Amino acid sequence: MGRVVVDVMPKPEILDPQGKAVAAALGRLGFGQFGAVRQGKRFELEVEGEVTEEVIAAARAAGEQVLSNPVIEDVVAVYAEEQQA
Amino acid sequence: MGRVVVDVMPKPEILDPQGKAVAAALGRLGFGQFGAVRQGKRFELEVEGEVTEEVIAAARAAGEQVLSNPVIEDVVAVYAEEQQA
Repeated sequence: MGRVVVDVMPKPEILDPQGKAVAAALGRLGFGQFGAVRQGKRFELEVEGEVTEEVIAAARAAGEQVLSNPVIEDVVAVYAEEQQA
Repeated sequence: MGRVVVDVMPKPEILDPQGKAVAAALGRLGFGQFGAVRQGKRFELEVEGEVTEEVIAAARAAGEQVLSNPVIEDVVAVYAEEQQA
């Protein structure tokens, strides 16, 4: 069984209040070296069998059509992941 | 300026209703090859200067102490990301 990861992030020009809140919390909690934070989503999609080029292409299409809101988000990465165990 | 990515996912033994809803939606929309989906979070942390081993270690600590709920979530990956532009 294979697994594909699809990473979705808010577009750079979109404000990310969730990320700003996280950055403020990090600063208060001793992690002030991280000046800015953006928060997005990570999806793990399971497929039967191997992760082929077609599976990656389908995962990218799913990311663009279903998993992200293209008005405010970008699919920033689509890649196969090694299965642990 | 450097950027560190911290990936947080629900633990394998935790039910993920959000992921299940996404899997059902994918099936209805023609992406039936993806049998199971899990949804987690992806954080991008910006740092001044280079991403050193210490920065990665601090990002992992931040992931475990602030960005994730260790009862139900795991920090599955911490890595430096190339800056585009």
